[in-house]
Amino acid sequence: MMLKQYDHIILLAHGSSDDNWRLPFERLLARVTGEVSSDKVSLAYMELCSPSIEDVLAALPTDKVNVAVYPLFFAQGRHLRVDVPKQLETLTNNQRVLTLLEPIGDNPEVIKAMESAIVKKLVEN
Amino acid sequence: MMLKQYDHIILLAHGSSDDNWRLPFERLLARVTGEVSSDKVSLAYMELCSPSIEDVLAALPTDKVNVAVYPLFFAQGRHLRVDVPKQLETLTNNQRVLTLLEPIGDNPEVIKAMESAIVKKLVEN
Repeated sequence: MMLKQYDHIILLAHGSSDDNWRLPFERLLARVTGEVSSDKVSLAYMELCSPSIEDVLAALPTDKVNVAVYPLFFAQGRHLRVDVPKQLETLTNNQRVLTLLEPIGDNPEVIKAMESAIVKKLVEN
Repeated sequence: MMLKQYDHIILLAHGSSDDNWRLPFERLLARVTGEVSSDKVSLAYMELCSPSIEDVLAALPTDKVNVAVYPLFFAQGRHLRVDVPKQLETLTNNQRVLTLLEPIGDNPEVIKAMESAIVKKLVEN
């Protein structure tokens, strides 16, 4: 396995004041860190709970230069088109390059899995 | 193929005032209706755009008795634990049984696909 261009990926979920809401995202992070080194991936929230992207970046070692933000969102609305890019712009500096990826809901395998999950609710094999 | 216990499934997305935001959900609906009869599945939004669950139910033929609501959400917060069940309670009547399913983000294949999508961003095969 060879590492890609990103030194670190920050998974970005919407955020909620509800502790239970965060659990599936924390479980997903745990699954990923079971496969890749845990210093390669973090979880952050856009609003309503912490840590924020800013918190995560502040705690990252300075050798994590190329950092991608991967939105755990189904779709791109104002948050991902306006708010988050603006936030990343203020957090980009000479020491760190931040890249906003397309939301995970755009991934073809994720779409296929959702399609299959829905069809299975309607059709008995 | 044999049809399951539900006469119809309403896919429930959060909703947004942003037209672009709805596109991935509309595309997902189109994929599903490419596999099952299009009278078996609809798309509704919880807030900020239409149609609502109520709109969809009002337009459904009366022989669609057992209707499931399948949330296109990653996680269960107050919306899915409190607001939507309360809404479904007011919409359940003698002619129609409404079932709220676990969110699609709980589906093991969807979780696996998301995990794989994230790992692929970090690891070159």
